Amino acid sequence: MSLNFCFIGAGNLATQLSQALKNKGYEINQVYSRSEKSGKKLAETLSTRFVTSAKEITKDAGIYFVALKDSAFEEVLSQIDFDNKLVVHCSGSLPLSVLRSYSENTGVLYPLQTFSKDRKVEFRKIPLFVESGNESNLKLLLKIAGEISDSVSVADSEKRKMLHISAVFACNFVNYFYTIASDILKSGNIQFEVLKPLILETALKVQEIEPEKAQTGPAVRFDKNIIDSHLKFLDENSEYGQLYRLISKHIFERYKK
Amino acid sequence: MSLNFCFIGAGNLATQLSQALKNKGYEINQVYSRSEKSGKKLAETLSTRFVTSAKEITKDAGIYFVALKDSAFEEVLSQIDFDNKLVVHCSGSLPLSVLRSYSENTGVLYPLQTFSKDRKVEFRKIPLFVESGNESNLKLLLKIAGEISDSVSVADSEKRKMLHISAVFACNFVNYFYTIASDILKSGNIQFEVLKPLILETALKVQEIEPEKAQTGPAVRFDKNIIDSHLKFLDENSEYGQLYRLISKHIFERYKK
Repeated sequence: MSLNFCFIGAGNLATQLSQALKNKGYEINQVYSRSEKSGKKLAETLSTRFVTSAKEITKDAGIYFVALKDSAFEEVLSQIDFDNKLVVHCSGSLPLSVLRSYSENTGVLYPLQTFSKDRKVEFRKIPLFVESGNESNLKLLLKIAGEISDSVSVADSEKRKMLHISAVFACNFVNYFYTIASDILKSGNIQFEVLKPLILETALKVQEIEPEKAQTGPAVRFDKNIIDSHLKFLDENSEYGQLYRLISKHIFERYKK
Repeated sequence: MSLNFCFIGAGNLATQLSQALKNKGYEINQVYSRSEKSGKKLAETLSTRFVTSAKEITKDAGIYFVALKDSAFEEVLSQIDFDNKLVVHCSGSLPLSVLRSYSENTGVLYPLQTFSKDRKVEFRKIPLFVESGNESNLKLLLKIAGEISDSVSVADSEKRKMLHISAVFACNFVNYFYTIASDILKSGNIQFEVLKPLILETALKVQEIEPEKAQTGPAVRFDKNIIDSHLKFLDENSEYGQLYRLISKHIFERYKK
């Protein structure tokens, strides 16, 4: 039996995952998206059909990949008759059990990466984490994941949640700090451009050195004069003084030991 | 007259800056370091002499580069007779005026980068910011900086402080968040390795896309269920709940507009 897939969701993650699977020879036989525009766009790149109504989702797929916003799960999935086929979600923080009421065969395939429109990532390098309550479903997911990525592990829902929380700090909050840095530069009419080499080097460094050992800056040096002068500037010119104070205190407490 | 330099300080920044200058043919005729080990090591790579007493610092250098911890400036510099030669510091947040009492010729050359032991960075790509109160000194610094970097700008002390504060967020605090992520993974016995592709992609993304537009994650999606489940885990297992709460609130406030 050749496996074919239905993609429920057509966002950034669905787009890159479905394309990686198609490149390995799998057939995607349908895409569902509430948005006509996203559904059409993804279906075209996959040479397949799309629907915008959950009721029209095909019964003929071998595996259903659910790549929806977490908050949309219930509304969309409750309209679909999966006929106990394998239903797989791709979410970091939703437990496997959220799928229980929709099918007897469920699983998770979680890619630990940030996906954006118009940025292609090399899928082979993305760590994938799979889970299933059923041995043969788990085996199948491991096989499929192993075809599209060099890094595949089994992770239960608790472990996956830890992965997701660590990713919020290492990616989402980090990106927000890039935004704060950009705000501060703007207040001095300085281009964000000048920070790019520093941002890249900071990320490259921890590819080789443990982040705890790579720490630099006024807080780890206990440089009170500099910290006070930064806080004075931030309190007078921005809303970021509180954050600077709290994080510097954390760093100070960690390294004073 | 061929210019020669004395390096006061032999840390990571002094090491990389002095080597970049030597590679352009400048002579470094002395290194000062309080630490015998660091002084000796740097002097060897530069084929020059080193001293560990500030009183033995040469009077024969054309320019003195001060790359000390900010807190060590006063103690070390007050012992040196610069004979009004050009004295240049490399600090982000100290104003040019801190050098006023030591020489009539002063300047700043600030590289916007993070320097660590045993990690070579490509000096040509580091943005350098120079300042001097005197036109001919400024010209000289611009010339020298232009020989070792493709990105040289003039920045006064106020502008340089903004650069430094933005670097604290985009580098020092970011690195601390990598450490937090590593802590969370450790609590689940997960290798930091799995986060490396995400960390790199997050930094690569903002080389092309404005960080404000690159924001992803539960906070920008207003995903209250996920945020609450993360906070429950962090409050029960770590000291990071308060930080997660505060930053999520910041992100929420910014993007709800």
